[in-house]
Amino acid sequence: MVQIPNTPPSASPGPRSVPTSADVARLAGVSRATVSYVLNNTSTVRISEPTRRRVLDAARELGYVPHAAARSLRAGHSRMVLMPSPAAPLGPLYGRFVSELQWALGRLDYTVVQYGTTAARGDEAARAWAELRPVAVLVPGTELGPQGVSLLRRSGARAVVTLGPACVDGAHALLMDQAAVGHAAAAHLYARGRRRIGVVVPRDPALETFSRPRLDGARDALRGTGAEITELPLAWTEEDAARLAARWTGLGLDAVFTYDDEYAMLLMRALQDTGVRIPEDTAVIGADDLMLGRLLRPRLSTVRVELPSGADLAALVDRAVRNPGAAPETHRVLGARVVRREST
Amino acid sequence: MVQIPNTPPSASPGPRSVPTSADVARLAGVSRATVSYVLNNTSTVRISEPTRRRVLDAARELGYVPHAAARSLRAGHSRMVLMPSPAAPLGPLYGRFVSELQWALGRLDYTVVQYGTTAARGDEAARAWAELRPVAVLVPGTELGPQGVSLLRRSGARAVVTLGPACVDGAHALLMDQAAVGHAAAAHLYARGRRRIGVVVPRDPALETFSRPRLDGARDALRGTGAEITELPLAWTEEDAARLAARWTGLGLDAVFTYDDEYAMLLMRALQDTGVRIPEDTAVIGADDLMLGRLLRPRLSTVRVELPSGADLAALVDRAVRNPGAAPETHRVLGARVVRREST
Repeated sequence: MVQIPNTPPSASPGPRSVPTSADVARLAGVSRATVSYVLNNTSTVRISEPTRRRVLDAARELGYVPHAAARSLRAGHSRMVLMPSPAAPLGPLYGRFVSELQWALGRLDYTVVQYGTTAARGDEAARAWAELRPVAVLVPGTELGPQGVSLLRRSGARAVVTLGPACVDGAHALLMDQAAVGHAAAAHLYARGRRRIGVVVPRDPALETFSRPRLDGARDALRGTGAEITELPLAWTEEDAARLAARWTGLGLDAVFTYDDEYAMLLMRALQDTGVRIPEDTAVIGADDLMLGRLLRPRLSTVRVELPSGADLAALVDRAVRNPGAAPETHRVLGARVVRREST
Repeated sequence: MVQIPNTPPSASPGPRSVPTSADVARLAGVSRATVSYVLNNTSTVRISEPTRRRVLDAARELGYVPHAAARSLRAGHSRMVLMPSPAAPLGPLYGRFVSELQWALGRLDYTVVQYGTTAARGDEAARAWAELRPVAVLVPGTELGPQGVSLLRRSGARAVVTLGPACVDGAHALLMDQAAVGHAAAAHLYARGRRRIGVVVPRDPALETFSRPRLDGARDALRGTGAEITELPLAWTEEDAARLAARWTGLGLDAVFTYDDEYAMLLMRALQDTGVRIPEDTAVIGADDLMLGRLLRPRLSTVRVELPSGADLAALVDRAVRNPGAAPETHRVLGARVVRREST
């Protein structure tokens, strides 16, 4: 049976013999308030150095660890920045961005917690995140709606920041417009004299958030030029790449934007195995500027995607937490720049 | 100034106007205990259906979200499984394993929380994890010592599970012995008639946890055979690979185990660019069995690394949480199997 909530947290019996702040107070011979002042480093209350030391020694001796949850209940908010894991595996570029961000937030004394992918989606997922009472939430992707934002705000999150293609009411937005990537790729192929351009669209539905805008961006770049776009669905398998390569000549394409560098590697291998010359018969451009593109022969042209620095984003989060009433900020943060090598 | 801890959580004023269970009780016209019974789905107390409905409607109307922290304080433990992010970027194989594990734990009603990498290491990091009062902790790598395990246990974690090369006192261990990978690679090269075998050791210090045992495993496999191992430090850059390739002939090697498939791609490219024939002059084997190995020419031989299934690990965690007093279990979980293709 559950205990009702009006029992004070530190008096409730922990599982087995978890030491509490009351135990520390008893051993140090001080009040529990004093223990709390010392362990929370409160600057508004003066505690004598010998007392402070006695409390710290007692805490060490008992192996007492403050309870972040209790502390956040007392303080009214936590230092936890919650970041749901993205639904799709987002590759090394995004991974680097996330670890840089975690590092930068850690330096500002936030604890970054990544919430695992679960079956819950959208606003239902927001409810699960809200239960942890984060002080800020960083949401990659497109799933969170205005209702989810408002639920998170009502549960005490001082800042909700989305990282995705569009703004959501009530949240700060770091707009990552993947269309810019497709736009840059197609404009480059057009400038190299190509007019019949294929665009690879991965069949993996988890990648749709990225592949759709990349395709749309490519269409936009060529609108009104007379150049043609052909959509090329492709699964992440050698077999599917070989199937596509086998009907390549019939497609009559003189260039292809392959969604990213990894799909470029997959398709280039299949094309070369069937005798298609790159770039003479078909120019190929990827995206993300991974090391592997430089190792392919011919060396792969690519679109370099520039994400915001972790430090900048951490600063935005901190500003928003300190000033929760401020109007949501919107920043366009995704840069796209063509790196031409030998494949175009 | 901090509030002292003996204020009941749900009576403490939230930041701005966060709805509390007291608000729900008031609107529904029931006691706070009843709200708690309904929202925690307590089966030991019978609540009439109209009352249950009134509480749920009131909670919905107010946008009330239960506080996981308060709930865990009441229940004495949480459903949070904490998983510190590994210090090194561990590649797609490990990424897939983690998301499978998160999914499996989610199905058992645990919330998986990944704790971001911070400056804190070892037992100091354990203290930070303990503050979140997880019911279980899964620690990849080698940093946690017996003191850290004991601190986590004292703070209420019912299970601590390490995923790494060695056991730690007091913790369950999933032994992932990377030496098996190097052993399999070297034994394969030896069986193919190679006797002067290079082993690539990435210069990236974050990869040492993996590269050292892989090297040691290769040495073990060849001990007493008369075959020789040459250690080859290599940075993840084209320049360093080109430097190594330039002095390749002088090294007199007839085979190389490249740490993993990505380093294989890097080194194979540099070797092929300087005219080394693979496998005639030098046999090459990688590890991890990534897609890219199948796309290289010649197709890359590799060591396929088999990790435990996420479902098995989730079941172990659940068993340990239900029976926190049981003796720690140790399982060897890393399998290594050579997949021979064209490069050896």
